[in-house]
Amino acid sequence: MKNLMLGSLLLALVVTQTGCHTSRPAQRYGAVIGVKPEKLEYYKELHANPWPAVNEAVAKANITNYSIYLTQFDDGQWYLFSYFEYTGDDFEKDMKILTENEEVQRWWKETDPCQNPLASRGEGQWWKNMEEVYHLD
Amino acid sequence: MKNLMLGSLLLALVVTQTGCHTSRPAQRYGAVIGVKPEKLEYYKELHANPWPAVNEAVAKANITNYSIYLTQFDDGQWYLFSYFEYTGDDFEKDMKILTENEEVQRWWKETDPCQNPLASRGEGQWWKNMEEVYHLD
Repeated sequence: MKNLMLGSLLLALVVTQTGCHTSRPAQRYGAVIGVKPEKLEYYKELHANPWPAVNEAVAKANITNYSIYLTQFDDGQWYLFSYFEYTGDDFEKDMKILTENEEVQRWWKETDPCQNPLASRGEGQWWKNMEEVYHLD
Repeated sequence: MKNLMLGSLLLALVVTQTGCHTSRPAQRYGAVIGVKPEKLEYYKELHANPWPAVNEAVAKANITNYSIYLTQFDDGQWYLFSYFEYTGDDFEKDMKILTENEEVQRWWKETDPCQNPLASRGEGQWWKNMEEVYHLD
């Protein structure tokens, strides 16, 4: 009986780790990019029905709780904002595996032409990384 | 023994709900606002050392995993992007309690003059709510 209880408690811990969309501490990333008005509907369609292989590759890269938001600015331009959490321990390695994934490359052939990256983005960036100025768990 | 196992499994479920920084399903909110260049440093200072009473009020309003990002656009304008998760069951009620909190009102007297809300924001909004076009847990 003790073993059974221990087993169940172990299960409790496993569920805690995998049941959460992030294990603490996660690294948070926020980024921004422009989107072309004429590609807006296609971009939304793609993301309303993302390819399962792409979602799987993103999850395998230890990216979790990933959201993309869309809004129009007062000058009429449209922008996308992304937020995700990275739960692995080697971001560069995981990003390398992700960017080399064939399905992900095929996906980006669809999404890249929809986007207008900011000129002021950092070197090697497509989406411009933003600075976190506040966080409350 | 059956009861003990059931009890442990129940515990597993309880841990899952309370062990995460958000219980699923959370409602996610992404929003945007401009920030005045001359107020940038003050805004950052405030948020690097947020008032404990304000953080407490936000947490009591069932807002969790709350981040604010800052970035400069190619036209030189600065913008803030917020992301948070709401884990309560009455958003309007919780927001009413939050907005009526005296410390929060005092905080907003500091932060509001730093910001330039978008003209295209929805009625009753200060930050403009954005549309979620993608999410991966």
